[in-house]
Amino acid sequence: MQTPDWQLDDNRFFDPDHTQRSLAAEIYAGIAHLPIVSPHGHVDPRLFADENASFGNPTELLIIPDHYVFRMLHSQGIPLEALGVPRRDGGAVENDPRKIWQLFAQNFYLFRGTPSGIWLQHELVSVFGIRQKMDARSAQAIYDEIAARLAQPEFKPRALYEHFGIEVLCTTDAASDPLLAHQAIRRSGWQGNIRPTFRPDTVVDLLAPGWAEHIQALGAQAGVEIVSYRSYIQALEQRRMFFKSMGATATDHAALAPYTEALSPGQVETIFQRALKNQASPQDVRQFNGHMQLEMARMSTEDGLVMQLHPGSLRNHNLEVFARFGPDKGFDIPTATEFTRNLQPLLQAYGRHPRLALILFTLDETTYSRELAPLAGVYPALKLGPPWWFFDSLNGMHRYFEQVMETAGLYNTAGFNDDTRAFASIPARHDVWRRLSANWLAGLVARHILDMAEAHAMAADMACGLARGAYRLDQ
Amino acid sequence: MQTPDWQLDDNRFFDPDHTQRSLAAEIYAGIAHLPIVSPHGHVDPRLFADENASFGNPTELLIIPDHYVFRMLHSQGIPLEALGVPRRDGGAVENDPRKIWQLFAQNFYLFRGTPSGIWLQHELVSVFGIRQKMDARSAQAIYDEIAARLAQPEFKPRALYEHFGIEVLCTTDAASDPLLAHQAIRRSGWQGNIRPTFRPDTVVDLLAPGWAEHIQALGAQAGVEIVSYRSYIQALEQRRMFFKSMGATATDHAALAPYTEALSPGQVETIFQRALKNQASPQDVRQFNGHMQLEMARMSTEDGLVMQLHPGSLRNHNLEVFARFGPDKGFDIPTATEFTRNLQPLLQAYGRHPRLALILFTLDETTYSRELAPLAGVYPALKLGPPWWFFDSLNGMHRYFEQVMETAGLYNTAGFNDDTRAFASIPARHDVWRRLSANWLAGLVARHILDMAEAHAMAADMACGLARGAYRLDQ
Amino acid sequence: MQTPDWQLDDNRFFDPDHTQRSLAAEIYAGIAHLPIVSPHGHVDPRLFADENASFGNPTELLIIPDHYVFRMLHSQGIPLEALGVPRRDGGAVENDPRKIWQLFAQNFYLFRGTPSGIWLQHELVSVFGIRQKMDARSAQAIYDEIAARLAQPEFKPRALYEHFGIEVLCTTDAASDPLLAHQAIRRSGWQGNIRPTFRPDTVVDLLAPGWAEHIQALGAQAGVEIVSYRSYIQALEQRRMFFKSMGATATDHAALAPYTEALSPGQVETIFQRALKNQASPQDVRQFNGHMQLEMARMSTEDGLVMQLHPGSLRNHNLEVFARFGPDKGFDIPTATEFTRNLQPLLQAYGRHPRLALILFTLDETTYSRELAPLAGVYPALKLGPPWWFFDSLNGMHRYFEQVMETAGLYNTAGFNDDTRAFASIPARHDVWRRLSANWLAGLVARHILDMAEAHAMAADMACGLARGAYRLDQ
Repeated sequence: MQTPDWQLDDNRFFDPDHTQRSLAAEIYAGIAHLPIVSPHGHVDPRLFADENASFGNPTELLIIPDHYVFRMLHSQGIPLEALGVPRRDGGAVENDPRKIWQLFAQNFYLFRGTPSGIWLQHELVSVFGIRQKMDARSAQAIYDEIAARLAQPEFKPRALYEHFGIEVLCTTDAASDPLLAHQAIRRSGWQGNIRPTFRPDTVVDLLAPGWAEHIQALGAQAGVEIVSYRSYIQALEQRRMFFKSMGATATDHAALAPYTEALSPGQVETIFQRALKNQASPQDVRQFNGHMQLEMARMSTEDGLVMQLHPGSLRNHNLEVFARFGPDKGFDIPTATEFTRNLQPLLQAYGRHPRLALILFTLDETTYSRELAPLAGVYPALKLGPPWWFFDSLNGMHRYFEQVMETAGLYNTAGFNDDTRAFASIPARHDVWRRLSANWLAGLVARHILDMAEAHAMAADMACGLARGAYRLDQ
Repeated sequence: MQTPDWQLDDNRFFDPDHTQRSLAAEIYAGIAHLPIVSPHGHVDPRLFADENASFGNPTELLIIPDHYVFRMLHSQGIPLEALGVPRRDGGAVENDPRKIWQLFAQNFYLFRGTPSGIWLQHELVSVFGIRQKMDARSAQAIYDEIAARLAQPEFKPRALYEHFGIEVLCTTDAASDPLLAHQAIRRSGWQGNIRPTFRPDTVVDLLAPGWAEHIQALGAQAGVEIVSYRSYIQALEQRRMFFKSMGATATDHAALAPYTEALSPGQVETIFQRALKNQASPQDVRQFNGHMQLEMARMSTEDGLVMQLHPGSLRNHNLEVFARFGPDKGFDIPTATEFTRNLQPLLQAYGRHPRLALILFTLDETTYSRELAPLAGVYPALKLGPPWWFFDSLNGMHRYFEQVMETAGLYNTAGFNDDTRAFASIPARHDVWRRLSANWLAGLVARHILDMAEAHAMAADMACGLARGAYRLDQ
Repeated sequence: MQTPDWQLDDNRFFDPDHTQRSLAAEIYAGIAHLPIVSPHGHVDPRLFADENASFGNPTELLIIPDHYVFRMLHSQGIPLEALGVPRRDGGAVENDPRKIWQLFAQNFYLFRGTPSGIWLQHELVSVFGIRQKMDARSAQAIYDEIAARLAQPEFKPRALYEHFGIEVLCTTDAASDPLLAHQAIRRSGWQGNIRPTFRPDTVVDLLAPGWAEHIQALGAQAGVEIVSYRSYIQALEQRRMFFKSMGATATDHAALAPYTEALSPGQVETIFQRALKNQASPQDVRQFNGHMQLEMARMSTEDGLVMQLHPGSLRNHNLEVFARFGPDKGFDIPTATEFTRNLQPLLQAYGRHPRLALILFTLDETTYSRELAPLAGVYPALKLGPPWWFFDSLNGMHRYFEQVMETAGLYNTAGFNDDTRAFASIPARHDVWRRLSANWLAGLVARHILDMAEAHAMAADMACGLARGAYRLDQ
């Protein structure tokens, strides 16, 4: 028996009801070809710095760097080593890409009904022209096809960027990053719109591994000797200005909890000095983080960078995996998150400030209707980011629309982020969002809550307009 | 281009599926014209005390008193002052009602897909006969139309009460309120059924602003000098009897958490004496509140007043807004709420008492399936109130039906409350509930879980019968 | 007027949309007649030990032992005594089964739209051939019909077991249980596949009523004198081996929270000695439980028994009911549950161990998408059990599919458990699961996320395959 073909149905993901489906298709038709606005993600800017950069082989493109993919394979007992995930100590892992690919292909059924399965299928079919479904038999033929495509000039990163219709792509970069790749892109004269984002987590989290070195690097890049909280703040402010000069419009902040607290100058200096001596306590870490969220908001009111907050992930849940393979290996697990009380100090200080824009994300969907939508529905500075990480999925989007929009209102949301490291999956991810947006709006039209003119306008905002506005990419 | 017309489609809010929609329409037709039972709300009784009372101008009717409306406008950066929200210090705010109306109209698109948008549209179309959609161009013409209607005798509050088919309307009144408006209504001979509800929050929360004055007022109204916990209880019991004599069938209690705890007579007296000396601690407040929930339940077993508990709102999240504009300005934000343990002392004491009726509300929807439905599905004294505040919405009702009914059973719920200050929105709110009830039941019929006879009976209960029974309005 | 007939529609529970319904019916047709795999439940094995065992009268079959049923009746004020629920002190309760039945029948409308109502209707129609709907008028006739059937040989437990097409049925048995009924079944030569499950809660929870006696019994059964933690562990290991020799493939563990913590040998011995002297503190109980979860996981890696964890129920919420009627009387109420941090010690120690299989259940649905699916989607040892207890319902299953599957993937779930004491309801419960599975898959096919071949394969896995695999019943 031959492996059957894959189909990308024109009406995929729309509600089966005929009325809603027709309306969804009509709304989607109006936004399908709009440019891609990608204001938050983790694509490596070096892909665009060198016009000859390439994605490597199919296994290097699709499996080894993608924790969404290898975590699912690992969950069924496949060792990470067998999937070629590199070890920190340089120890042996599988290095035959075709062997890894075969393992992936024969377990491809595990992705049934998952967003990873949907993105992979879309990417394979519409980017690489694959027709056969992936399984053990078709594996090597598909590998060959992808490899052949990747060798062609139109599959180089810059060519795909243009082919995908990307209007802007923002990367995520450490506060001490010299942004060499971004500088190289500018020098090259290539017209792609790649912008950095200022992410200071490793210099804000006093217990981050290597904090002292990160502080050193921060000071060196800023040309400031960091000996005090004051010089630390100077260095951060300078780096923010540098990022802004390189095109950044936003900062990004992770935290276990969105805790905020204003410390006095004396308190914060005392904690900072303890940290410089490597004597910070967990309580110091918590208070300093809480204080720095306020400081970052304050800086945003001054330099106009949009502030993003991504709380709630307990990183590196399994220390053995972390020790062997490092971070971002699929073992980051969400935790219950509280916003109402945690954000109160920040929102009292800056939540009604006309220059602050604060975009919130969550991994705790219970906060959508209980805390986030009520907060975004009244504080002028707040916008809600799209469904994040595990919730960047069909049902995740559906729940977001149903639980956020009635209370927050669409115009207090920030459109879509693809948040991906997997550059070639970007069109797939935006397509899912646009289809689900169209389907949600179609449901409101079918229930006579909106008319089609309203739905068309809202769909275009959801596809591009809200993201441009929320990230100040239109200014 | 002319502003298009508004349509109130006969099938609005029903599922697009043809089968479910037809069934929903049939079920709805059986309940659409039933009288309105409004057992919990915040309409000002003075509207009915004077037969010539009026609603003021359109801006005074629809914008200035409605925090649902002005919070959404504020969330997009419009200052509350520009919307005419009065300042506590009497400072200047916009006082041109047409200017405020214009701002409202040009931002009316913000309400797309929100319950406020749905209520406003229903009210404008079916109460005031407006046909044009609201936007910047139609704003002043619509203002004129509404103003003209409001000047007519059939748009006075008593006339609308009758026109709306209201069977009973319960207000919410402070424990020390002399209920002058209710007395005036009785004296006037008007036949409207307006009843007070006993709400003692400001005399129970020891740290409520002005607690001492409220206690004074309570004592004065009760004819009791409050010098001890014992005299305090006497005063409360007397006031409850007075409210009951004025037609009240229920009490209402707010709390940050539904914490309950039985204190000994010595403990409670000690705390009360500290409070009289203005020395109560936060711990005292918490314990006293917890104790008073038990006391109120005990009183209910004696006087038969139905007890309502509305926990979970962190009031006045932004202290600057509170200082400038006072309470109820859209800055009350929900918090995670725990019922299983918090209510255990109360439910052990009175949860199986044949005379207690306790109606619970929540702003934390996670408690629907996890705590509230399991509790209501076994304790005879418990009923669940309808989806509250932010959840009095299409999706809020849908989630409530899906998450509560299977475990609690319909007959352990309390029907609908409109809970509104906006009198003219009452028909719109009940209509949404009736349509969503019909649609939910239609889905059960379409899935062969109920037959139509059952659905019709349940729909009538949801529209009126359950509320009458739960609030003892049928006794 | 005659009481109308009951209908069990062929398409019941399927989505009303024509496309989805047709697909669901087609998928369901492929699994409707597969054997029943029941890997977790509470049926009394004595029903099968004696070939002449019987279910008693209709009231003894359907009402008195079923807390799902009598809790709903009690919630409307009917005393448990009036429903024949036996008192611990032997005090008088209603003992006329027809009187109890009449009360049940006239209140049968309370079960509209509840899973109990659906199971009861299915059981009455398809097991007992009842046609009339249950109400006050039909009550005694229906009683007569059921009683007549129960007297027939084909309604004895063993006959129904075969008639139902059960492949395997696992019971739940205390760690100290001699498994006499299971031994009798084996000796009888009857071919039914009834297996015990090892449940050590009463010997692990140091404050369980009668802990000392349970420890005594455990030691006696194991042939070990339990004087130390070490001998306690020996006894547990021996009992596990005995259960395994009697066909057990799994253990089962309840806990208020899924807290895990590794204690040192000295710490655990100290706590155990305090417990032997009846001096254990609440903190001891918590730590000992947390430690024993780790120990049980360790034993599972050695003896291969699948470990089940059922946390989150606050048992016996009403102490008066507990004192009078004992446990399992409908007053067990869920609480918020945390898995990410609580399970971290256990998952770090054994979560990637190739021999551990840990099946998690929850009564807190917020953990589906936030914690459980992300954990099961990466840890090889983890599988998620089906929706449990209150969530073994149409909407409970729907939420489980929508909130778990995208992130965990179907193959990290454990199929279905009926978890019932009510043997005659088993086909009804599996039928609901199969219909809802088919309907969920049909929705994915209708949205072009799966093709029909995939859906058919997944449906069969959901009906039987996943349960067989997860519980190692196929080894």
